[in-house]
Amino acid sequence: MPQLYHHWLSPSARFIRIILAEKQVDPILCLEKDWERRPAFLALNPAGEVPVLVMDNGRTYSGTKAIAEYLEEFYPEPALLIGDIDQRYEIRRLIGWFHTKISAEVTRHIVNEKLFKRFLGMGTPDSETVRCAAHNLKTHLRYITHLTAQQNYLAGGQFTLADAAAAAHISVADYFGDILWNEWPEVKEWYVRVKCRKSMRSLLADRITGLTPPKHYSELDF
Amino acid sequence: MPQLYHHWLSPSARFIRIILAEKQVDPILCLEKDWERRPAFLALNPAGEVPVLVMDNGRTYSGTKAIAEYLEEFYPEPALLIGDIDQRYEIRRLIGWFHTKISAEVTRHIVNEKLFKRFLGMGTPDSETVRCAAHNLKTHLRYITHLTAQQNYLAGGQFTLADAAAAAHISVADYFGDILWNEWPEVKEWYVRVKCRKSMRSLLADRITGLTPPKHYSELDF
Repeated sequence: MPQLYHHWLSPSARFIRIILAEKQVDPILCLEKDWERRPAFLALNPAGEVPVLVMDNGRTYSGTKAIAEYLEEFYPEPALLIGDIDQRYEIRRLIGWFHTKISAEVTRHIVNEKLFKRFLGMGTPDSETVRCAAHNLKTHLRYITHLTAQQNYLAGGQFTLADAAAAAHISVADYFGDILWNEWPEVKEWYVRVKCRKSMRSLLADRITGLTPPKHYSELDF
Repeated sequence: MPQLYHHWLSPSARFIRIILAEKQVDPILCLEKDWERRPAFLALNPAGEVPVLVMDNGRTYSGTKAIAEYLEEFYPEPALLIGDIDQRYEIRRLIGWFHTKISAEVTRHIVNEKLFKRFLGMGTPDSETVRCAAHNLKTHLRYITHLTAQQNYLAGGQFTLADAAAAAHISVADYFGDILWNEWPEVKEWYVRVKCRKSMRSLLADRITGLTPPKHYSELDF
């Protein structure tokens, strides 16, 4: 069975967990506090970051998007990178958008300020950064509203890697209660559809002792 | 003929230029100073960054890695994402490595300090940042040395998207004279191989008026 090095609130690791679950692969989850820079983990991935996947053949895979494409090729069913050349482009563009932009503008700061600094005591949280991340989050929620105006999922009528990437980030922001769902009805409709998928169950059941998400976090009807 | 919005020293735009040239596609190059945030350009790509590709069908493509995968599908010959599932993974991992890590640790800072601040006068260059970027660059040159120890190109015996990604960044650092080639003989051997390719010619011939690269920059034997 594949092993996945992850930590609870890494959106990149969540992205890979969702993909594996969609493919009905149940990996052995290894909690890796990658900020501790454990030498044995650095040997697996010189970039020092989760996710890292170790397949049954013993080979190691790192780099979030490279892992996603690899899994799509290794487990072709159900396909999550679907459609014609233009739809596949759009799915990849959106993976890049969420992986790069929502990460740099929102989730990296939320995790840094609220998990590493406030909860783990690795520094003094900076309220200005928290405020900026909250402001930037609205831009991304508006973008999801725009994308889902005419279609059920972000890149068309079906769930794809683009939805997995977005859900990974949204679920992290939601763990900290940072999304005022009443203000974003269209995003909520999309996220209810995503949350109802089996692939989200194990991820939404994870809890960090002492850091409880809001009650609605894992509820399907919120 | 496709149009490519680029600017001279964007490694991401260079990556796409190299791919197009390998595919023997000669795009119309449109210089876009994306830091000026021109509204018509933002309408093409809300992320506001080059490269942006406009194909003959009028459709617009943005997001560097998504464009690269699209071009590989649209122009399958010559193939630059080759081999079995593990080699394709390795190529994609390396694209991510260079696109994300060398960018964040080296080239973004070089371009910011030396092009935007020093040359374009958009701020005071920070010598500590320049020093850090130079230090980080060594790590990446060591990594290229390691990768090319047993093979001619970064992901095997043939030129792939991984080499295109690395060459895009290395050529930008080299434009500013930041690579002491005598200290990196193995990297130099690899880069000579890359520079000899037709696909590098137009890119290495570009000059910014008033900002001249070192003499060796475009020489094949340096």
